[in-house]
Amino acid sequence: MKHRDEELHKVQDKLPILISDANTLKYADGQVEVLDRRKFPFHREWVTCTDYEATAKAIEDMVIQGAIGVAVAAGLGYVQAAYAARDLTVEERHEYLEKAAERLRNTRPTGQRLWVLLHELEEITDKHCASADLEDKLLEHVREYLAYFDHVSRETGRHAASLLDDGDTILTHCYAAGAILWMLHFAREAGKKISVYSCETRPYLQGAKLTAPSIHEMGIPVTLITDSMSAYMMASGKITKYITAADAVAMDGSIANKVGTFLHAIAAHAHGIPFFVLAYEGVDPNIPTGVDIVIEQRDPAEVREVNGVPTTIPELQAEYPAFDVTPPEYISAIVCANGVFAPSDIRNHVMVEKRPQESAN
Amino acid sequence: MKHRDEELHKVQDKLPILISDANTLKYADGQVEVLDRRKFPFHREWVTCTDYEATAKAIEDMVIQGAIGVAVAAGLGYVQAAYAARDLTVEERHEYLEKAAERLRNTRPTGQRLWVLLHELEEITDKHCASADLEDKLLEHVREYLAYFDHVSRETGRHAASLLDDGDTILTHCYAAGAILWMLHFAREAGKKISVYSCETRPYLQGAKLTAPSIHEMGIPVTLITDSMSAYMMASGKITKYITAADAVAMDGSIANKVGTFLHAIAAHAHGIPFFVLAYEGVDPNIPTGVDIVIEQRDPAEVREVNGVPTTIPELQAEYPAFDVTPPEYISAIVCANGVFAPSDIRNHVMVEKRPQESAN
Repeated sequence: MKHRDEELHKVQDKLPILISDANTLKYADGQVEVLDRRKFPFHREWVTCTDYEATAKAIEDMVIQGAIGVAVAAGLGYVQAAYAARDLTVEERHEYLEKAAERLRNTRPTGQRLWVLLHELEEITDKHCASADLEDKLLEHVREYLAYFDHVSRETGRHAASLLDDGDTILTHCYAAGAILWMLHFAREAGKKISVYSCETRPYLQGAKLTAPSIHEMGIPVTLITDSMSAYMMASGKITKYITAADAVAMDGSIANKVGTFLHAIAAHAHGIPFFVLAYEGVDPNIPTGVDIVIEQRDPAEVREVNGVPTTIPELQAEYPAFDVTPPEYISAIVCANGVFAPSDIRNHVMVEKRPQESAN
Repeated sequence: MKHRDEELHKVQDKLPILISDANTLKYADGQVEVLDRRKFPFHREWVTCTDYEATAKAIEDMVIQGAIGVAVAAGLGYVQAAYAARDLTVEERHEYLEKAAERLRNTRPTGQRLWVLLHELEEITDKHCASADLEDKLLEHVREYLAYFDHVSRETGRHAASLLDDGDTILTHCYAAGAILWMLHFAREAGKKISVYSCETRPYLQGAKLTAPSIHEMGIPVTLITDSMSAYMMASGKITKYITAADAVAMDGSIANKVGTFLHAIAAHAHGIPFFVLAYEGVDPNIPTGVDIVIEQRDPAEVREVNGVPTTIPELQAEYPAFDVTPPEYISAIVCANGVFAPSDIRNHVMVEKRPQESAN
């Protein structure tokens, strides 16, 4: 898993801070520094976590957000624990680290990526618990993990840029993370002038808070709209391509993404506008079809408020499905780190391993 | 224009306060009482306007909202002026009322309905300025105006109810005003069980603030969702009909309504869900086709905030088209006070007069 390279470091000064979790999670000598996502984009404040308990708390308090960011933060929390336990006996250290892993795992009981990374780190401890450079070995593993995802998001962005034409105006929904920023970077490098319409993405406003400010930070023209305005913009001839990320890609080429993604996909289809999905590691071999994707139902209280400010009376019923599923017939292409694929062909380009059966776990 | 009737008064205790502007604008002895729309639905506070200047200010300050409400408030302001001028000479009174009309007209320079009602009231003054019951005559005219719109919204609701089936779940966007509440009332009277999904309707949140609370007030099941969730609900089989109002209906059967209406209409069409438009006075003979409808572009600052709370950084560019246009092929029927019509047939059922040419004005 060696993917660390110089390209990121060469260009990252010109790129938005959110392009990589490596920019927002820093580690040195038992301390973790975290960019406070709750205050972004209004303020760039860093929270210092002096021990793994503080890092666990920061994860629980949403200082850190996003599956990779949370996994990396938990991983760094585990490295902090190794630092704190450096002068203990091997046995005590092992015990201390077991307790730390348990604490960090419980910050997000459903965090699949967090679970996997902590498991990998525990395997390193099992092998090197007595070694004087255990902390370094663990940190190296977390950094490789980060570098791998930087690689995946950059390659996804590079493939996506090849689908853009000079003069394109892209509609996007929610926050497609590093890949959409890399895509805009590579398109600009290739001399293509691109502009973006970013949907605000209620209820959590990722478009308003993450996507639009990051694209603005790159100096690329971006216009914020409410989620309700996409069809108007399409009918006005202002949108030439629709591009989002995917939280999950099924083997039949269906994708799940932030609720609203399917709504705009239907409108794009009706207007003859292609829809490209930035899918990073691509299809999940564990999910046969779109109907097998379980849609998380979140706390409906968030629908009755914005940033904690109520928009209606508290006794109203509300629903908050976090994602929707777009069937393959609405998708023009699925863009992954290993290439651009037709939805019908995606099952032939699996990048990630199939999870072992539950019983084998 | 005699449309005052007893039905409203018989049932209005069971109906939401917003079903008629008559419930939220009261007049007695030179005083106007206005339900404060800026605080609804959180608080039911009344603003007392002791003279026409206070009423003009209340219109400007958005205490009163909606084209009919604003026109009626301005009309009542004019009645206040007649009350204040009751002991002046006929000449002085005429002059005083002219000044008042000018002030009230300028509260909303683009308010077509406000302009027409004030013009009608001035004609009454021209005829009856010397009469001791001028105030009564003016007030009677404003009340008939209100009663006419109550009639139009109730009849629209009655026709719409005939299109509903027992067990229907309706998606709606923005606030379709009295007609949707009357529709739900008549459907219930006919023994049909109906429930509603109400889109919150960013940026101004009319769905969250007006529609959902009013339907909740009727004791009819209503669920608030963000504008982005409509396609998810449709794909889940939760929506059987889509119903909104229209701000304008063109002779070709296109309609303009709050931005987002067209977006949901495309999704409804893709899911085989009928779309009914509550069009009150129906088609506007002055508008030949959908492309002739001018879409108001409002202050984009509202897209960067919710209820005055910023959702992103202030330097971001934003756009705020207030309406979108839905072409006739997405509309199943247009429901007016005088019947239910196919979009292609609406031009044959004009209720309102064609405006005189500019030169004749």
